[in-house]
Amino acid sequence: MDIVTTTLKRIKPVNADLLQQAQAKLDNKTKPPGALGRLEEFARRMAAIGGTFEPDTAKKVIFTFAGDHGVTAEGISAFPKEVTPQMVFNFLAGGAGVNVLARHAGAEVRVVDVGVDFDFENASGMIHRKVARGTRNFAKGPAMTRDEMLAAMQVGIDLADQCKAEGITLVGTGEMGIGNTTPSSAMIAAISGKTVAEVTHRGTGINDAALERKVRVIEQGLTLNKPDANDPLDVLAKVGGLEIAAIAGLVLGCAANSIAVVIDGFISTAGALIASELHPHVRDYIFAAHESVEIGHRFMLERIGAKPILDLQFRLGEGTGAALAMTLIEAGVKIMNEMATFEQAGVSKS
Amino acid sequence: MDIVTTTLKRIKPVNADLLQQAQAKLDNKTKPPGALGRLEEFARRMAAIGGTFEPDTAKKVIFTFAGDHGVTAEGISAFPKEVTPQMVFNFLAGGAGVNVLARHAGAEVRVVDVGVDFDFENASGMIHRKVARGTRNFAKGPAMTRDEMLAAMQVGIDLADQCKAEGITLVGTGEMGIGNTTPSSAMIAAISGKTVAEVTHRGTGINDAALERKVRVIEQGLTLNKPDANDPLDVLAKVGGLEIAAIAGLVLGCAANSIAVVIDGFISTAGALIASELHPHVRDYIFAAHESVEIGHRFMLERIGAKPILDLQFRLGEGTGAALAMTLIEAGVKIMNEMATFEQAGVSKS
Repeated sequence: MDIVTTTLKRIKPVNADLLQQAQAKLDNKTKPPGALGRLEEFARRMAAIGGTFEPDTAKKVIFTFAGDHGVTAEGISAFPKEVTPQMVFNFLAGGAGVNVLARHAGAEVRVVDVGVDFDFENASGMIHRKVARGTRNFAKGPAMTRDEMLAAMQVGIDLADQCKAEGITLVGTGEMGIGNTTPSSAMIAAISGKTVAEVTHRGTGINDAALERKVRVIEQGLTLNKPDANDPLDVLAKVGGLEIAAIAGLVLGCAANSIAVVIDGFISTAGALIASELHPHVRDYIFAAHESVEIGHRFMLERIGAKPILDLQFRLGEGTGAALAMTLIEAGVKIMNEMATFEQAGVSKS
Repeated sequence: MDIVTTTLKRIKPVNADLLQQAQAKLDNKTKPPGALGRLEEFARRMAAIGGTFEPDTAKKVIFTFAGDHGVTAEGISAFPKEVTPQMVFNFLAGGAGVNVLARHAGAEVRVVDVGVDFDFENASGMIHRKVARGTRNFAKGPAMTRDEMLAAMQVGIDLADQCKAEGITLVGTGEMGIGNTTPSSAMIAAISGKTVAEVTHRGTGINDAALERKVRVIEQGLTLNKPDANDPLDVLAKVGGLEIAAIAGLVLGCAANSIAVVIDGFISTAGALIASELHPHVRDYIFAAHESVEIGHRFMLERIGAKPILDLQFRLGEGTGAALAMTLIEAGVKIMNEMATFEQAGVSKS
């Protein structure tokens, strides 16, 4: 039995009774029922996911998975491929967007090399789990073999298991990989049946001609590789990415370990979509960090059934949106843990 | 010359060159230009408001103004009037929603009695600036005299001046006053020319019959008092509230002192609207904490020209939304202060 099948067997639905009991606890706080809106939703979900009415979110981790993409050979990105390892060093030095926002949120950033085309040797402060030096160019053949894809998913699953052992209850996803909006769009097109043009956007900022090329490259990759829309793992292997597979594994692993997982933007959501397609209760553990104007992102969030927490027009990835969403989820948890009840405060109920 | 006129003379527009220079600083950080969306807007506005490219948001204060409303005699609220002082004690004990969320945001809550119908004597930990023991019932006559309204505005202005002296750069508004959605709706109807029914909602949760009564009471108050839509201070005095006037003063005072001010929900926005109507550049200093489904709130935000930061379906007030919005504004400031540039990180530009 492969690692994915084993992990899927561990996933259970979140207990609906716990959700209700958590809401009852919130309804006794000094405020009109439901007056803290979605913060109450975050609190009751965290309680039910963790199986405790005093969830502890002190230890929070964001995993930023890095990987390269053979398809960059087709000229689909505004940035050169060298930027992937350069940004990894930026993460390690604490200077990137995700570092700043994770510090703000009180979360730790763990940088994982799952597929960068660069030899980091023993660079310290990062997690070395390289499966391959980038994917192959999916415009010419499958991006990964099924075994490579499973190995990358295992990285995410292993890290989720380790979080459980460390008592971490809230995890965020993030990624870095020049060109990785291209595989994400390809995956969405394959699964949704929407046209490539509908679900493909400008990534970090390419012009019209480059956008047209990107759409053509994705169409070519889909025609050539014929990913099976009914087999999410086939889609992931043929037109996905190593860091996207690791995210899919992390989300699956979080669900298996009853850990809440905040999915970041477009690329992270593509990973989460694969996990969600594999098991109907994965969604019970997912929080979506932010809204997007993109059709492809919206499709994924609707399919997963996740309502985005923020709408700040981010398009950076790395885990930046997840970091900020975590601060709001934690705020909800604190409402449940710290607010006075009507009785404690001597306040009259309506 | 009255305090409002004096304060209005101190207000200057925010320097557009500074906004541009701040954006140039952000564009040199290791991310595609604009990729952190609204966080960059917050950062450049904070820089331009404070006149520094390294804004310091370590000291943040939320003012929760408390006041009572004579119009509660008409039975327009789901909660009894006693809840206003009870909640003030809850604020002082640190157990209310705004306390929890302000602690989370690293902000201090300052509770101001500007018009509660209760004798707090020398209760410590609060700011004693009572102008009157609540407003009069505006269904029977003006809520305040012009002098009372000005005295309440002065409370807010004085507190903003004091913040300037303390080096505080980011201030939030909040309020507590059983019944205070009623004067807020009355003010919006008077200024917007919209029907009372359109801009009146259920407050903390009244039923259909009570909502109908609330609309009728407001209509009666407007017919009786005839507030002048072209004189925001007349509207505020006749159908407003003491805590709402203090918020209007605080917002005006923040603009006069070049302090950024985050306005909370429905009632705070009514106060901010008055300030904004008095001077075209007050809006340069305003951040709107959150979105609302209510027509009245939307009207005010559009009129002020403020785009809400969050949409978490809050309807509590106190400053709860302002607290969370502050964490996001501060996140933007940290991006400007802490993120590495392309040069520092050795990352290639596109």
